[in-house]
Amino acid sequence: MSEAGIDVVMLSVGSDLPYFTGYEAMASERLTMLVVRQTGDPVLLVPALEAARVPPGPFDLLSWGDTDDPVEMVARAVGHPQKVAVGDHTWSTFLLALQGAIPGAEWQVASEMTSQLRIRKDAAEVEMMRAAAEAADRALARAVSEVRFAGRTERQVARDFALLTVEEGHDVAAFTIIGSGPNSASPHHEPGLRVMQEGDIVVCDFGGRVGGYFSDVTRTFSVGEVGKEETEVHALVEEANRVGRSVVAPGVTCQEVDRWARSVIAGAGYGRFFIHRTGHGIGLEVHEHPYMVEGNDTLMQPGMVFSVEPGIYLPGRFGVRIEDIVVCTETGADVLNKADRGLVIVA
Amino acid sequence: MSEAGIDVVMLSVGSDLPYFTGYEAMASERLTMLVVRQTGDPVLLVPALEAARVPPGPFDLLSWGDTDDPVEMVARAVGHPQKVAVGDHTWSTFLLALQGAIPGAEWQVASEMTSQLRIRKDAAEVEMMRAAAEAADRALARAVSEVRFAGRTERQVARDFALLTVEEGHDVAAFTIIGSGPNSASPHHEPGLRVMQEGDIVVCDFGGRVGGYFSDVTRTFSVGEVGKEETEVHALVEEANRVGRSVVAPGVTCQEVDRWARSVIAGAGYGRFFIHRTGHGIGLEVHEHPYMVEGNDTLMQPGMVFSVEPGIYLPGRFGVRIEDIVVCTETGADVLNKADRGLVIVA
Repeated sequence: MSEAGIDVVMLSVGSDLPYFTGYEAMASERLTMLVVRQTGDPVLLVPALEAARVPPGPFDLLSWGDTDDPVEMVARAVGHPQKVAVGDHTWSTFLLALQGAIPGAEWQVASEMTSQLRIRKDAAEVEMMRAAAEAADRALARAVSEVRFAGRTERQVARDFALLTVEEGHDVAAFTIIGSGPNSASPHHEPGLRVMQEGDIVVCDFGGRVGGYFSDVTRTFSVGEVGKEETEVHALVEEANRVGRSVVAPGVTCQEVDRWARSVIAGAGYGRFFIHRTGHGIGLEVHEHPYMVEGNDTLMQPGMVFSVEPGIYLPGRFGVRIEDIVVCTETGADVLNKADRGLVIVA
Repeated sequence: MSEAGIDVVMLSVGSDLPYFTGYEAMASERLTMLVVRQTGDPVLLVPALEAARVPPGPFDLLSWGDTDDPVEMVARAVGHPQKVAVGDHTWSTFLLALQGAIPGAEWQVASEMTSQLRIRKDAAEVEMMRAAAEAADRALARAVSEVRFAGRTERQVARDFALLTVEEGHDVAAFTIIGSGPNSASPHHEPGLRVMQEGDIVVCDFGGRVGGYFSDVTRTFSVGEVGKEETEVHALVEEANRVGRSVVAPGVTCQEVDRWARSVIAGAGYGRFFIHRTGHGIGLEVHEHPYMVEGNDTLMQPGMVFSVEPGIYLPGRFGVRIEDIVVCTETGADVLNKADRGLVIVA
């Protein structure tokens, strides 16, 4: 904080708070806020009715009742800071009130500092994420052998995936995208009532949490046999995924992963159908630094964990995405997901 | 907007956006934002990879790619507004960037305007919430007859409740508090590994979504027989709940509901153990305006929907809460939850 000239850090909802304290704020209109000054113990301000759920931690616990003003309590605790860093996901209702109560301060997001600490995972974090990835791989293997796709809706299959995600060892299923047929061309498709049928491509992108850390994996299946272009596009994305992973090494920029994966797809004439970056960091959040995107010249370092997930999306027809989580190590990519990347046929 | 002197409204994550457009933003580091000016069509800015999931709506759809700057696009679209209202849950990372890109503007939360529209539910909204409450009541009835409490962990029972919540008609289970024995004295207890046993009090507080609208109900059970004070405290909370509901009528202030429910508990000497307000509005969010809390002199109006949920929490011993969702009507409270409020014995 003193290096960055930050007088106060204020953390609320989001993953910085659990990263530093082990306690996760409930997302609510009642303010939870850790206040860290350059000197003195940090103070965790929580709603009175949540005080009993806070485990002991490296902070003084201060609770406020429903007729108190927690913003005023934060303002009183910090005095007249010049520069304040506030958690990235803090709600605007709190930020605007705090800006009013602490006039004249300069505000920035906490991640400018905290992402420097969080971007490299230590061995224990990597092992948690490996456990999560292995659980996701097992869920995928069971989905291939146990889940019926043809004749069932995306929503039904999404529920099956969510159950398998938990059964195979996640604490909770966090998200499930099942995009079938033309819906597979919508990268963040919300599983709906479309009934799958033979000849469909199905993008399955899902993840859950293990000990706070996320898995996130995508495989694209074919329901029975699919056409020639589907097969070719799938092979192309598989190659882009492989090339993207092969670039991972300390000292290489993040944007190089994007460039190399993209070059495979662009070289085959599908460049304008790859409508997102190649990957995102992952850890206590599904998406966090570093991002594998053009313009990000951050150098990869050992301990960075991120996705490599090229895709091709042909509007109204079909899409393909193949995603793995990789760890940058001294010797290159340690690929946490091992599940078959080929165009597996499901029933 | 023109009455309130607001030049631009900016809505991102949270429920104002689906309330006005039918589209819910994904909570993500990629900005989704509806920009509403006093003149001209609203613009919905979404990440390119999410454009395909946006249904047609009363806006112009504008998408941005992963190498674009969406904050700059919003700033360009709004020019030089003097007064901007921003969605209450908008992340600080976006608000701070927007404040930098639109210098000199005065910012306020959108709910100052939108809650005036949302605080009274129309007949269709009330019927959705009635369906949600009835589904929650059915889940409760099945929990009493089907769920085994003794010898199982809070977490296991919480999973049973979540499954019943969905099986009885919710689109999704949203939250489940199962607090047993001394944990029942923690109002927002996170279900854990405590194994329940005969003589435990168990607070069960859960809800889900039906068509975007939430249910939220709490009943307190006894696992087998409990002691005399547990029974007396339960009866007291049941009476406070009844009295709180009985006050509901148009023209009465919200704080009166809190005062009357609290007076029952305080009158019996337990006032300092009722550590939260008596209730919260509910709708597209679990907690929204109006709040039944001391200091809120908002007059109740027909169509307001909120919880009445007094509680008593004896630290280290046990707690009791009984919660119903009620609609204020011309003739008083229409109580959506009908489940038995007595101290039901479970197995």
